[in-house]
Amino acid sequence: MQRIAAFPSLIENYLAETEFPDQPARLYQPIVYSLEEGGKRLRPMFVMLACHLFSDEAERALPAAAALEVFHNFTLLHDDIMDNAPLRRGRPSVYRKWNRNVAILSGDAMMIHAYRLLGRVPEEKLPEILHCFNEVAIRVCEGQQYDMDFESAERVSIDEYLRMIELKTSALFVGSVLIGAMIGGADAQALHHLDRFAREFGLAFQLQDDLLDSYGDSRLGKTVGGDILEGKKTFLMIRALELASESDRRMLRTVPRERSLSSAEKIAAVLGIYDRYGVKELTEREINLHFDRALAELDSLKEDPARVAPLKQFAQGLLGRTK
Amino acid sequence: MQRIAAFPSLIENYLAETEFPDQPARLYQPIVYSLEEGGKRLRPMFVMLACHLFSDEAERALPAAAALEVFHNFTLLHDDIMDNAPLRRGRPSVYRKWNRNVAILSGDAMMIHAYRLLGRVPEEKLPEILHCFNEVAIRVCEGQQYDMDFESAERVSIDEYLRMIELKTSALFVGSVLIGAMIGGADAQALHHLDRFAREFGLAFQLQDDLLDSYGDSRLGKTVGGDILEGKKTFLMIRALELASESDRRMLRTVPRERSLSSAEKIAAVLGIYDRYGVKELTEREINLHFDRALAELDSLKEDPARVAPLKQFAQGLLGRTK
Repeated sequence: MQRIAAFPSLIENYLAETEFPDQPARLYQPIVYSLEEGGKRLRPMFVMLACHLFSDEAERALPAAAALEVFHNFTLLHDDIMDNAPLRRGRPSVYRKWNRNVAILSGDAMMIHAYRLLGRVPEEKLPEILHCFNEVAIRVCEGQQYDMDFESAERVSIDEYLRMIELKTSALFVGSVLIGAMIGGADAQALHHLDRFAREFGLAFQLQDDLLDSYGDSRLGKTVGGDILEGKKTFLMIRALELASESDRRMLRTVPRERSLSSAEKIAAVLGIYDRYGVKELTEREINLHFDRALAELDSLKEDPARVAPLKQFAQGLLGRTK
Repeated sequence: MQRIAAFPSLIENYLAETEFPDQPARLYQPIVYSLEEGGKRLRPMFVMLACHLFSDEAERALPAAAALEVFHNFTLLHDDIMDNAPLRRGRPSVYRKWNRNVAILSGDAMMIHAYRLLGRVPEEKLPEILHCFNEVAIRVCEGQQYDMDFESAERVSIDEYLRMIELKTSALFVGSVLIGAMIGGADAQALHHLDRFAREFGLAFQLQDDLLDSYGDSRLGKTVGGDILEGKKTFLMIRALELASESDRRMLRTVPRERSLSSAEKIAAVLGIYDRYGVKELTEREINLHFDRALAELDSLKEDPARVAPLKQFAQGLLGRTK
């Protein structure tokens, strides 16, 4: 088996290999800026680990790994315009550092670059890989549209929310794992289990992201309460709105816009209501549900458990599980 | 040989075959709206005619023809945001009818849809076709960036301008003709000539577009003078700036922003300067130069002239030549 520990640097080196032209500078500089180190490279790691499940030549999956990472970064670039997000990984987002038009166009070029990288996969597998990539890519767009629709929606159900994050977040994990596995030579049954694994993992991952935004994580220096201050309809907020009394529900809706309160007071008020209805525990239970399902899919694979282990450990690490 | 007259309806029907999901409505409605009849479908016609040059089964090129048309419409959708263009084919542009975020995201989805259509080309040809498509797609982005850069540039040379339109306009014609020819089974030498044909045709086509914007065309009900009022650096304006006296040059720069003048007066003032330096004739000469080069490339093809004729006639028709 290969040295998994080498995968991150293989990915970083492969991404750094692309030399973009100098001109037009305002087209290519934002792409270079977006792809500079700092990303966690989760999707390319999934591509590599899924390929490794079936093959000792995971390097063959590097172009696809890079394609998934570049596509993911393209979505962040355009999402930041749509969400008016000033920061990305602690630095100004592209549309703030340059401007909206630069961000739109360099994002477009980045998506095309992702397809260029994808064009380097083994020729005989290109048709099915391109098909898979296109299907998950369009799902990511659907997810982002639902996410924006939810901002102005009167009411969003838990089911609708889960369907949205399955599109916006899980889809690209599904694409990563399936494409890596295809390059490795997986059969249809293995692909079926990996598809379900990635879907469930993506749900758990996004729900954990929602949870950490409100309750924090000592491992990360992340600001806590951003979602609350934005009045974002996260899993926690939707659950709380479902469970809360009439007056608490009114509080949840008005607090984020309450000018007389400080940010800290707003966060404390909302967390107080979350705590009253056990929202933290309910979210943790939902995370565990999806993560357990994800692991069960991995256990259903017929591959040597020693081959499955790195993928499993990587997924566990991302959800802070050490078991 | 096939009935060329049937190509437009084959294209229209193929484009109409795609049934987009109903939801999310704000993602898919703008795509349907953008692809509704009204486009001239030039690029798909070039795909089909180039395929027909080498094959009696031009229908095999329909998915690629649709991919090129969808990609072209995606670029218009995003360009309209960047250029603040309120109208497209006489109707509100997507970002005006919906909003900027809807236009960004539905444009992204439209680009992905173009790649989905491209994924339907004959499998054995997919690698080279995807490669060609990606290369011309990125050139279109480069061209749009240069075009935006030129708006704020102090000085743009004729060479720089021609290089820009070669990217922004010719590239997609090149892609259309090459991909159509690849599907038809063209050899490397034929592809070489067709590449040069489409590049030169694209230059002639864009220069004619510039000319008609200032001098009009009785066949089209197009508003004349739009470029002049916007102070756009077209071929005509750049040529005039090169040739004009110091005082005329100052006029060319200031007239579009002159608040005391009506639109008609601005247009008349700029056209007066163009006429003084023979800019119309110089532009016509440049158009002819590139169009003659384009035709010479077609004449260099070894194919039966009867097979080349429809492509030649189509190109001539687009430039208003009946010879």
